[in-house]
Amino acid sequence: MIPGPVKVAPRVLRAMSKPMISHRSAEFGAIYDECRDLLKEFFETENEVVVMTGSGTVGMDAAIAGLVGREEKIVTISNGKFGERFTEIGERYGKAMPIAFDWGTPINLDRVEAALETGAKAVAMVHNETSVGLTNPAKEIGNMTRKHDAIFIVDGISSIGGNQFKTDEWGIDIAITGSQKALAVPPGLAMVSVSSRSEARFLERSASYYADLKAHLKSARKQPTQTPYTPAVPLFFALQEALHMAKEEGFESRRSRTAMQAGAVRAAADALDIKLFPQINEFSPYSNTVTAMKIPEGISDDRLRGGMKKQGVVVSGGQEKLKGKIFRIGTMGVCSSGDILRTIQTLELVLAKEGKLPNRGAGVEAASKVLGV
Amino acid sequence: MIPGPVKVAPRVLRAMSKPMISHRSAEFGAIYDECRDLLKEFFETENEVVVMTGSGTVGMDAAIAGLVGREEKIVTISNGKFGERFTEIGERYGKAMPIAFDWGTPINLDRVEAALETGAKAVAMVHNETSVGLTNPAKEIGNMTRKHDAIFIVDGISSIGGNQFKTDEWGIDIAITGSQKALAVPPGLAMVSVSSRSEARFLERSASYYADLKAHLKSARKQPTQTPYTPAVPLFFALQEALHMAKEEGFESRRSRTAMQAGAVRAAADALDIKLFPQINEFSPYSNTVTAMKIPEGISDDRLRGGMKKQGVVVSGGQEKLKGKIFRIGTMGVCSSGDILRTIQTLELVLAKEGKLPNRGAGVEAASKVLGV
Repeated sequence: MIPGPVKVAPRVLRAMSKPMISHRSAEFGAIYDECRDLLKEFFETENEVVVMTGSGTVGMDAAIAGLVGREEKIVTISNGKFGERFTEIGERYGKAMPIAFDWGTPINLDRVEAALETGAKAVAMVHNETSVGLTNPAKEIGNMTRKHDAIFIVDGISSIGGNQFKTDEWGIDIAITGSQKALAVPPGLAMVSVSSRSEARFLERSASYYADLKAHLKSARKQPTQTPYTPAVPLFFALQEALHMAKEEGFESRRSRTAMQAGAVRAAADALDIKLFPQINEFSPYSNTVTAMKIPEGISDDRLRGGMKKQGVVVSGGQEKLKGKIFRIGTMGVCSSGDILRTIQTLELVLAKEGKLPNRGAGVEAASKVLGV
Repeated sequence: MIPGPVKVAPRVLRAMSKPMISHRSAEFGAIYDECRDLLKEFFETENEVVVMTGSGTVGMDAAIAGLVGREEKIVTISNGKFGERFTEIGERYGKAMPIAFDWGTPINLDRVEAALETGAKAVAMVHNETSVGLTNPAKEIGNMTRKHDAIFIVDGISSIGGNQFKTDEWGIDIAITGSQKALAVPPGLAMVSVSSRSEARFLERSASYYADLKAHLKSARKQPTQTPYTPAVPLFFALQEALHMAKEEGFESRRSRTAMQAGAVRAAADALDIKLFPQINEFSPYSNTVTAMKIPEGISDDRLRGGMKKQGVVVSGGQEKLKGKIFRIGTMGVCSSGDILRTIQTLELVLAKEGKLPNRGAGVEAASKVLGV
């Protein structure tokens, strides 16, 4: 129940066992074409989508390396670990203008606007900050970015397909996701959508050879469709199968199911007197793909998560400065109501053992109510 | 029968279907540790080996981005398509000094020495030029590179584990291979060995964020062992299983079997009056992992390879300027004597149909003799 890599459905795992095919063949091209088409629906975009072999980070890297020159400014917004990664990448290739907020607190839109007014080619932001369970105001910052004629780059890795994420409506020029999140594919692929507006402003030559969006777009437009370098073929088999599953469920249905499941976790937390970690406001709601909660006083991280693990349920801890302070439950991909209830039940069990359970069964009851089971 | 991605053994395909695990867990760390240890034997090195998620190109990229600064020189040697890639990467990050030879002709060592005398931080070369079926003189250039106190970077992607490749004995500072070649894993992982001598000369900060060897070494030294960004977990399962298989066969036995199989293909070509493409000399022998042959006069590429494909045997054509001029048969990984004989038999069948078979059965007979079957 960690916020990715998530559980993978058996039919997706089985798809990986197909015999290898050449990545320059028409057969591979047809698989890639179908994935690109379905990913457009998944991203809610008319933009082209390419698939890169690598973690989601390779997509974040490609966006900035391809767009931001040594002397160009990029505003990098952060309120958690992954936002900070954008600052690191921005510093690697151009002039990063970091706007940092305390981890888990909402972004102040005025500060972003002020930074944009000093002139920047691009703005980079994480939509769903996995490290703190908060979603950031992509729509509002998208509007602002357009007004200032900058390019908007959004890390949607743990967001797209789980939270609401409207690539085109919100004016997101480059959106990135990873295979191991809402799509429930094993990790190893990054999916990147690219607006023609941003493509027109790409650097003549990307600062990175491997993470080169231009090269990926060029190869994707060849016949047969291909990738510039050898792709992770079995993960493309898995991606195709997972997209079929998501299409069968309905992309919209998957999003509302995910929202309901996160709602169930939050209701259980409330019933068990466990405080949610992030601070929210009207533009920055709780994440629907990962719920971050404070570890109740008097229990150690080790006893809480270690106790749950002994019962077969793995949840995540806090990262870096939040280590030992919070724990996180993911609700992404092909997670079921049963998975949620078992997780809450196990949490109750551990709390009871530690003498910290206020009202036995209240968490499971609250979650069941939301899930309608 | 293409020179990668190669056929994958069923037990390796099955290994990929295991349920996902967290890439920060002790369980993943133990798998990565075992792979790193076995890869040392595979590379014949005492150097550390890291595994990156991406094609072999990400390893080539990481080596140069991490070592060669904007104003630093790198000698890039090429006599085929993949050598030219090193020049492209060298130009992306530093000052490339390309030394190019006609595709498929041996490297002139004097020209390399002359380039080194003008001062260069590194030399990059492809050991086994897959596009032309020729191996390059790594031992000789390794000696030369040491003499001039430069770093020696070798693309061993289609070589290591198939051809003789002595990382330490030949003084190779950074050696790179890909999962989809002699190891017979599906594509998607690059394995890179790094000498402490080269690590000491890494740039303060790699020019690439994703393809960052320093970050990979740092994470590989953590407890549990990990990767800086989310790795393609199922490909690590496959890598572990494939390394077990290679160890069971014996790394040395796999190399001699591969050599014998390439010998069988060459003997068949000779018996069928098909000319081998590359020019060889005492330092540059034919490749044992890919045999490149001229397409016999009077037959088109399409009829030759298309005809074989109809019979279920896929071989590769020429790339770029060699398109339509040569065809290539790979002998890597878990290829069997039966695979070789079936390929030669199919080649004979197509040649016979086109009225171009000088002596029916001679190819299969010559190959069988070499294979001892």
